[in-house]
Amino acid sequence: MSDALQDRLFAELESYPLIDPHTHINPHAAASTTLADILGYHYYTELAHSAGLPQGVIEEEGISPKEKVARLVPKMAAIENTVQYSWLLDMCRDFFGFEDESLTEQNWEALYDKAEAAMAQDDWEQQVLKKSKLDQVYLTNDFDDPLAGFDTSLYVPCLRTDDLVFHLVKPEVRQRLQKATNSELGTVEELQAALTELFKHFKQNGARACAISIPPDFSPAAVEAGDVASIWLRLTQDESVADREKALLSQFVFWQLAKNCADFQLPFDLMIGVNRRVYEAGVFQGQDLYDRRTSLIQYRTLFNAFPQVTFPISVLTHNANQELVSYSWIFPNVVANGHWWYSNTPAYIEPDCRARLTAIPKTKYVGYYSDMYKLEFALPKFRMYRRVLAKVLAEDFVQGQKWSEKRALDLGHLILRGNVETIFGR
Amino acid sequence: MSDALQDRLFAELESYPLIDPHTHINPHAAASTTLADILGYHYYTELAHSAGLPQGVIEEEGISPKEKVARLVPKMAAIENTVQYSWLLDMCRDFFGFEDESLTEQNWEALYDKAEAAMAQDDWEQQVLKKSKLDQVYLTNDFDDPLAGFDTSLYVPCLRTDDLVFHLVKPEVRQRLQKATNSELGTVEELQAALTELFKHFKQNGARACAISIPPDFSPAAVEAGDVASIWLRLTQDESVADREKALLSQFVFWQLAKNCADFQLPFDLMIGVNRRVYEAGVFQGQDLYDRRTSLIQYRTLFNAFPQVTFPISVLTHNANQELVSYSWIFPNVVANGHWWYSNTPAYIEPDCRARLTAIPKTKYVGYYSDMYKLEFALPKFRMYRRVLAKVLAEDFVQGQKWSEKRALDLGHLILRGNVETIFGR
Amino acid sequence: MSDALQDRLFAELESYPLIDPHTHINPHAAASTTLADILGYHYYTELAHSAGLPQGVIEEEGISPKEKVARLVPKMAAIENTVQYSWLLDMCRDFFGFEDESLTEQNWEALYDKAEAAMAQDDWEQQVLKKSKLDQVYLTNDFDDPLAGFDTSLYVPCLRTDDLVFHLVKPEVRQRLQKATNSELGTVEELQAALTELFKHFKQNGARACAISIPPDFSPAAVEAGDVASIWLRLTQDESVADREKALLSQFVFWQLAKNCADFQLPFDLMIGVNRRVYEAGVFQGQDLYDRRTSLIQYRTLFNAFPQVTFPISVLTHNANQELVSYSWIFPNVVANGHWWYSNTPAYIEPDCRARLTAIPKTKYVGYYSDMYKLEFALPKFRMYRRVLAKVLAEDFVQGQKWSEKRALDLGHLILRGNVETIFGR
Repeated sequence: MSDALQDRLFAELESYPLIDPHTHINPHAAASTTLADILGYHYYTELAHSAGLPQGVIEEEGISPKEKVARLVPKMAAIENTVQYSWLLDMCRDFFGFEDESLTEQNWEALYDKAEAAMAQDDWEQQVLKKSKLDQVYLTNDFDDPLAGFDTSLYVPCLRTDDLVFHLVKPEVRQRLQKATNSELGTVEELQAALTELFKHFKQNGARACAISIPPDFSPAAVEAGDVASIWLRLTQDESVADREKALLSQFVFWQLAKNCADFQLPFDLMIGVNRRVYEAGVFQGQDLYDRRTSLIQYRTLFNAFPQVTFPISVLTHNANQELVSYSWIFPNVVANGHWWYSNTPAYIEPDCRARLTAIPKTKYVGYYSDMYKLEFALPKFRMYRRVLAKVLAEDFVQGQKWSEKRALDLGHLILRGNVETIFGR
Repeated sequence: MSDALQDRLFAELESYPLIDPHTHINPHAAASTTLADILGYHYYTELAHSAGLPQGVIEEEGISPKEKVARLVPKMAAIENTVQYSWLLDMCRDFFGFEDESLTEQNWEALYDKAEAAMAQDDWEQQVLKKSKLDQVYLTNDFDDPLAGFDTSLYVPCLRTDDLVFHLVKPEVRQRLQKATNSELGTVEELQAALTELFKHFKQNGARACAISIPPDFSPAAVEAGDVASIWLRLTQDESVADREKALLSQFVFWQLAKNCADFQLPFDLMIGVNRRVYEAGVFQGQDLYDRRTSLIQYRTLFNAFPQVTFPISVLTHNANQELVSYSWIFPNVVANGHWWYSNTPAYIEPDCRARLTAIPKTKYVGYYSDMYKLEFALPKFRMYRRVLAKVLAEDFVQGQKWSEKRALDLGHLILRGNVETIFGR
Repeated sequence: MSDALQDRLFAELESYPLIDPHTHINPHAAASTTLADILGYHYYTELAHSAGLPQGVIEEEGISPKEKVARLVPKMAAIENTVQYSWLLDMCRDFFGFEDESLTEQNWEALYDKAEAAMAQDDWEQQVLKKSKLDQVYLTNDFDDPLAGFDTSLYVPCLRTDDLVFHLVKPEVRQRLQKATNSELGTVEELQAALTELFKHFKQNGARACAISIPPDFSPAAVEAGDVASIWLRLTQDESVADREKALLSQFVFWQLAKNCADFQLPFDLMIGVNRRVYEAGVFQGQDLYDRRTSLIQYRTLFNAFPQVTFPISVLTHNANQELVSYSWIFPNVVANGHWWYSNTPAYIEPDCRARLTAIPKTKYVGYYSDMYKLEFALPKFRMYRRVLAKVLAEDFVQGQKWSEKRALDLGHLILRGNVETIFGR
C-alpha cells in the first residue's frame, strides 16, 4: 500500500506549478543550446574528473561542444550509480525522448544531434519552462548587473553579495562597485552609500532577496563604520591591511547588508559552510569543499539584532541540519531553505526533510530550489525532491498521523510553492 | 506483515507500567488545571512564536488562562505538522474525548470548558497517573527544596545542580545555599560541607539522582579546594573575580558533586550541550539553543576518575549520539539516557534508538523520560517513543535477527522500565 | 516484494569470492584454536566489561582459554542485543553447527569442546577460508616484520606505520627501525633512507598498501628534512624535545611516507579519527575512543600535494561520512574505504553506504574490510555488510531507479570485490 500511496502523492506533487527560488540562470541564455551545456554542468565534469578524466582533457581550450561531450561520455559509466547521473537520464528522456538505459559511446551522438535540433527551436526556452511547470525563476545576480533586457517578472533578480563581503579588498571589485554606483568610495560613508544604491537598484528591478555563500568559520558581528574607517582608507590608498583587518571589513559589509535588508524589506539568504578552492587543480566549479565544524551559534548576534529580517538558511552539510531545524523552531526570523549541494542527494534530503517537516512550523520550510545554471535541470532536480517529499508525506503523515491524502498534499503544496510566495513575496 | 507486527509490539509496549526518570513536575501541582497549562508548555508557545505570534501577546501579564489559550489557538494550524502538535491532539483525545482533526478557533472553547471540568475533579491527578500507567515520577528539585509535603515514593526527588555549578557567583544563589544548609560559606571547606549537607538531605528524602544540564564548552576537571580557595574568598567578599576564575570554580563545584555522588551512591545525570538564552527575546523557556560542536572527550577525566559513579547521559543533538553509543560501549559507568529536547522527535529518536539498541549492552540504555512539566504529557510522549521502539524491535530484532516477539518485548520492557529500576535504584 | 528482492540479491552477493583488504590476521596463526580466540576478541571483552565484568576477571594472568570463556559467557546475555553478538552466533552456527538461540552457561561447554575439535583439524584454516570464500587476506604488518614464512599471495602484506609517525620519539621504536633497516639513524637523511628501505622491503614482498590510524587532531603538512634536522639530532642524543617539536617530527615522517607511496606506487590507507587509551582501565584494545570534531579539511594539503597517490580513507564516525563522500566526489585520489569500528554497525553502515553509493563514482568505494584478528570473523562481518548492501541495492537501484537485478548485482560485485582489485592492485 505504501508504494502505491507514495506514487499517488508523487503524481499530485508533480502537477504543481513551481517558483524556483534560487538558481544561477543567465536570463539572456536560460536554456541549453547543446548537450554540452548539460554535460558541462560541474556535477558531471567533476564526477568524471573524480573518476579519472584529467582536467585538461575536459577543459581543453577551443574544443567544440560536441568534442567536449565526446570526451565526457566514456566516463559516464563510472558514475551511473549517482543520483546526478539519474538527472541526466531524466532530462534526456523527458526532453529528447531518449529511451536507452545508459548514455554510451554508441548512442550519445544521435542523442547529441537530436538535442541540438530540439534546442535550436525558437521556443525551446518556453517549452522547457512549460514542461517543467516553472512559473518563476529566481536569479543570482552580480551586484553590478544592470538587470536589463529580460523579463524580471519571470526571471526574478536576487542580489548576490559574496564579492562585496569577501572580495572588496581586491581593487577590481572596488572598481566594479564604483562604476555600478557611480560613486567615489573614498570613505566608509561612501561605501555605505554605495551599498544602499545597490539595494535601491535591485529593489527597483523587483529583486526578492539578498544572498550570500559563507565559509564555515565566518561569524557576523555588529561592526560599525567607525571600526573600519582607517582600514578602508588604507585599503583604498593601496596601503597594507592585515588579515585581521580584512576580516573586520568583511563583518562590517555583512552587517551593512543586513541593515539594508531590513530597510528594503528583503530576505537575506544565507548559504552557510563552503570553503572555496580546496582542490585547486579541479575542474571549473569543482574545487569547493568544506570543514563541517561550523555552527549556527555563530549567527546568534545577527538573528537577535535583526528580528525584522527573514533569514532563509541553507546548510551545506547533513550534520548541520538539526541546528537548522532547532534554530528555525526557536527564531521567528530563521527559515529552513532547500537542500544544498553536497546535501542535495536523496540519502540526505530524506532525513533532513523528515526532521524539518515534523518539528518546524509548516510555514517556515522552503522545500527546494534547483541551484541550476541551465533551465533543463529544474525538472529532474525538483522531481528528485518531490519523490522524497511524497515518501515523507506518505510515511509520516498519511500512515503515521492518519492524515487524509488531501491534507498531506496541502502540506506538500505549501512546502513546494506556498512558502516561496509568502517568504520571498510575489 | 511489518505494519501488523509493529502494531502488535506497540500494543504490548503500551501496556507496561512506567517509571518516568526525569521530569519537571511540581509535586504540589502535578496535573493541569486548565488547557492553558498544556498549551502554555514551551513547546507550544515557542512554536507559536516562531510561526509569528509576538512574545508580548503570548505572555502579556494578567491575562486569564482562557485568554491565553484563545491567543495561541489561531497559530496551531501553522504547527499542525509538528510532532509536538500530535502530542496535543493525543492528550485532548485520550483525556477529554476530543474527536476533531484539529484544534481550531471554532472548537477550542468547548474543549477548554470540558478540560476544565475534567481537571477540576478531586482525583484528576490520580486519573492521569492511572491512565498514563505511571508508577513513579522523578522530579527535578532545586537544591534548596525542602522536599516536604508530598509522597516521595511516588514523586521521587532528584537534586538539580545547575545553580550550584554555574551560578554560585551570584550572591542570591549563595544566600539560598547558606539558608538551605544553615552554614557560613566563608571558606571553600564550608562550601564543601554545605554541598555534602545537600546530598544528605536529598538522600534522606529518597533522592535517586543528582542532575545537571551543561553548556557545550564545559570540561570537567579535578579542581581541588586549594585551587579555588582565594577565588572563593574574593567572591564572598564581593571582590572582583575573573571569568577564568569563575570557570575554575564551576569545575571545582562540579568535581565536588561527582565526589558526593560516589559517597552517597547516586547516579550523576549529565544533560550535555545546551547554551542558555541564545534568543533573549524569546518566550519563557524558548530561548535556549546550542553549539553542536561538543564532544564526550571533554568528559574523559571525569569518567576515568569516578568508576564507581554511574553517569546516565543525555545529549542534546543527534550528531552526538554516536559518541554516546561508543562511550557507553566502552565505559562501564556511562549509560545512554533518553532522547532529549531537540533530539526528541521521531526523525532523530529512531536512528538514535536503533544505533544504541544494536551496539550498547542492553542493560545500559534508559529508553525514555518525558521531561514534562505537567503530568498529562507523559502519555503522548512515551507513546511516541514506544511507537519508535516497536518499529526498531520489529525491524531489527524480529525480522532482522529472527527473534521471537516475546524475546523482543522482553528487551523492550528492559529498555522502558527494567533499566530505570536497575540504574536509579528502586 | 521488497523483502524477497533483498533476499535474492543477498543470496547472490553471498556467493561472490572475496578479497579482504584490511585485517589484523597473523599469517602464522590465522585461524582460531579455541573459542577463547573468538570470545577473546576485543568486541566481546570490552562489551562484557562495559556490562559489568571487571577487567581483572577477564584478563587474569594464567587462566586457561576455557576458563576465560567460562568467565565471559555469563555476561553474553547482557549483550545479546548487539550486532557484535550476532556475529558470534553466526560463527557458532556456520562453523560448529550450533543450533541454540543463545550462548548460555548451560550450553557453552559443549560448544567449546566441539569448536576445539574442529579447530584442531589440520586443514581448519583452509576450511575457514573456503567457507568464507576468501581468496586473499590483507595483513597489517609492523614495519620490522620480516614478511617471511607465509604465502604472501594469500596473506598480502601491508605496511602499518603508526609507530613510525607517532612513536619514533621512543628509543625502542628507533632501535627497531635501526635493526630492521640495518642503518645508523644518526641524521634525518639516514632516517629518510631507512624509511625508503622499509618500502623496498615491503614492495619486494608484495605489499599492497601503506596504512596508518590517525588521531582526530592530526593535520599533515609538508615538513621537510631541514625543518626537523636539529630536532632529530637532539632526539637521538637523548636531549629534550618539546611536544611541539615531536608533532613536527610526526608531520615530517608522515610526509615522507606519502612521498614513498608515490615513489613505490602504493595506496596510502588513512584511518582517521581515533584517540588511543581514553579509558586506560579498560580491557586490551578496549580503551580507544574519539573526539568527533575532526575534518578532512585537515588533509587538503596532502591530497593536493600527492595527486598520484590513492588515499583509501576510513572514518571512525558516521558524522564524518558526508565529508568522505564529498571529498571522494571531488578529489580523484580520495577513495571511500569500508565501515570502520564504531561505525561498523548496520545502524551506521546503511546510511553511510547509501550516501556513498548514490554520490561517489562507483569505482571509488571499497565496500568492506573485516578488520579481523582471526579468520573466522570474515564470514559474519561480511555477511552483515552484504545484507545492508542488498537492502540499498534493492531500495535505491532496483526499486528506486528501475535497474535490473543483474545490473544492481554487477554494481554490488564491483563494490565488494572489483574495486579492491583495481585500487590495491592484484
